[in-house]
Amino acid sequence: MADSQRVLVVGGTHGNEVTGVHLVRRLQRNPQELTRDSFTAQTLLANLPAMAANRRYLEQDLNRCFTAALLNSEPQNGEQVLAHEINEKYGPKGADSPTDWIIDLHTTTANMGVTLVVQQHDPQAVDMALYVQQKMPDVVIFDENCTRDEDPFLCSIGQHSMLIEVGPVPQGLLRWDVFEQTARALAHALDFIDLRARGEDSLPSPRQADMYQFIEKLHLPRDEHGAICGMIHPELQDRDYRELSPGDPIFISVDGETIPFDYPESVHVAFVNEAAYYDQAHGLSLMRKRTVSWEGE
Amino acid sequence: MADSQRVLVVGGTHGNEVTGVHLVRRLQRNPQELTRDSFTAQTLLANLPAMAANRRYLEQDLNRCFTAALLNSEPQNGEQVLAHEINEKYGPKGADSPTDWIIDLHTTTANMGVTLVVQQHDPQAVDMALYVQQKMPDVVIFDENCTRDEDPFLCSIGQHSMLIEVGPVPQGLLRWDVFEQTARALAHALDFIDLRARGEDSLPSPRQADMYQFIEKLHLPRDEHGAICGMIHPELQDRDYRELSPGDPIFISVDGETIPFDYPESVHVAFVNEAAYYDQAHGLSLMRKRTVSWEGE
Repeated sequence: MADSQRVLVVGGTHGNEVTGVHLVRRLQRNPQELTRDSFTAQTLLANLPAMAANRRYLEQDLNRCFTAALLNSEPQNGEQVLAHEINEKYGPKGADSPTDWIIDLHTTTANMGVTLVVQQHDPQAVDMALYVQQKMPDVVIFDENCTRDEDPFLCSIGQHSMLIEVGPVPQGLLRWDVFEQTARALAHALDFIDLRARGEDSLPSPRQADMYQFIEKLHLPRDEHGAICGMIHPELQDRDYRELSPGDPIFISVDGETIPFDYPESVHVAFVNEAAYYDQAHGLSLMRKRTVSWEGE
Repeated sequence: MADSQRVLVVGGTHGNEVTGVHLVRRLQRNPQELTRDSFTAQTLLANLPAMAANRRYLEQDLNRCFTAALLNSEPQNGEQVLAHEINEKYGPKGADSPTDWIIDLHTTTANMGVTLVVQQHDPQAVDMALYVQQKMPDVVIFDENCTRDEDPFLCSIGQHSMLIEVGPVPQGLLRWDVFEQTARALAHALDFIDLRARGEDSLPSPRQADMYQFIEKLHLPRDEHGAICGMIHPELQDRDYRELSPGDPIFISVDGETIPFDYPESVHVAFVNEAAYYDQAHGLSLMRKRTVSWEGE
């Protein structure tokens, strides 16, 4: 029977996030894990040169190369060439993409547990995240909060997409807890696609979920030459998703001086001390926590 | 007054172990932290090209380039050239090295706390480690267990040397807890050099210490093509310095199969899931715990 859903599972979009790489290789050896009644998912190891170098990327972060603007321009580096090739094979990006679902497997050095990154303009993806959260109650739903055209993620070239982000785990190594949680979240996501393809809906109607909506990234303390000269305050380290209020300790200088949070409102934090953010000297992301309600299909 | 001791503090021997890099930069801005009655320590950021690339090394691990054999051969790559230059400036390696002490600052992704790596053939360094342990009782003393000629570490070109290894911290990022512990261990080590230079000895005589002596590294599970296909067992993850007995779970395959420890004796473990070991597919180090006694000077 032809697949009623075209589903793609991706690892290695960041070459040093090896959990997704090894999980995709396991799935390739065990295709029954990719199979449901209505489809067998395909797999992609996205950035092979970066994987070989055990680096996030070689010239540009591949997961920032899938905006409509970049996909419609002449590619300027190896990752942009790769993005065009991937978009040609699994896209083109747009509401009519031939790929129904893309699920991309990522890790973080931050203590974020299992975070499901979706876009609020994709209610089916929000449904998927809510379904996984029913099965794994500690899972956090994160709204990346940008339009499809602006969305730079690889998974944005599918009609619907979800990014599974699990941590804490250092770059370039495997931890069983992170690996197993990633596999479990992915399995539930594939179950969801199958249930939906067969017209089943186990979610309450109307649905309701707590979501963390991305606001902005903040820079680490930097000296007059732009060099990093401070780090996450120990009271904030490992406390992803906690509320941070104006005046709370946020950073500490290398000399041990506490730097308070200077912001007009209380917010929540994520990607606290993410190693991949250091190339831009970013220390964390700020989020708004919102309770969202929406109708079922 | 001329320094009675020539002391060198090194960071950036591994370019992505940024704790030492940022600590050395702090010390360079605050030379009083490097100063004791009998000396002002010098500093070195050892592998600038690797630091710029945020990688452990570019062509070869610099901290494997200081064996007598390599220092006496024509250099074959950038790191070997660097090793020759460093040996020319601060060595030559040997019992008569003009540098009395080298302290090299490292980090690990393993849950090793503060580990002081010394060589048993350097009793002054073992004394230094014991002194630091008096001040910081959780510190572990690790005997690298090789001769001076075979010792590949940068710090081996000094008359006496100690490597301060602190974790867990991912590569390429700063954690205050790790940074602060590193600074504290270093300050105690410099105090020790100064006390010793002034003829003082606060250590008991005879001395006694528990030391972990390196035996060998073990490979991660690998498939028929040599690719990694398993990881540290969750019961062993984060349990550095615990005893591991034959039959205990040591690895788990990506498919979830537990692999027991197949070894003729009970040993202790360190560098459990060190990211830097993955290039050689090593998963951990095995150690023998010994109680050592020796006479004071």
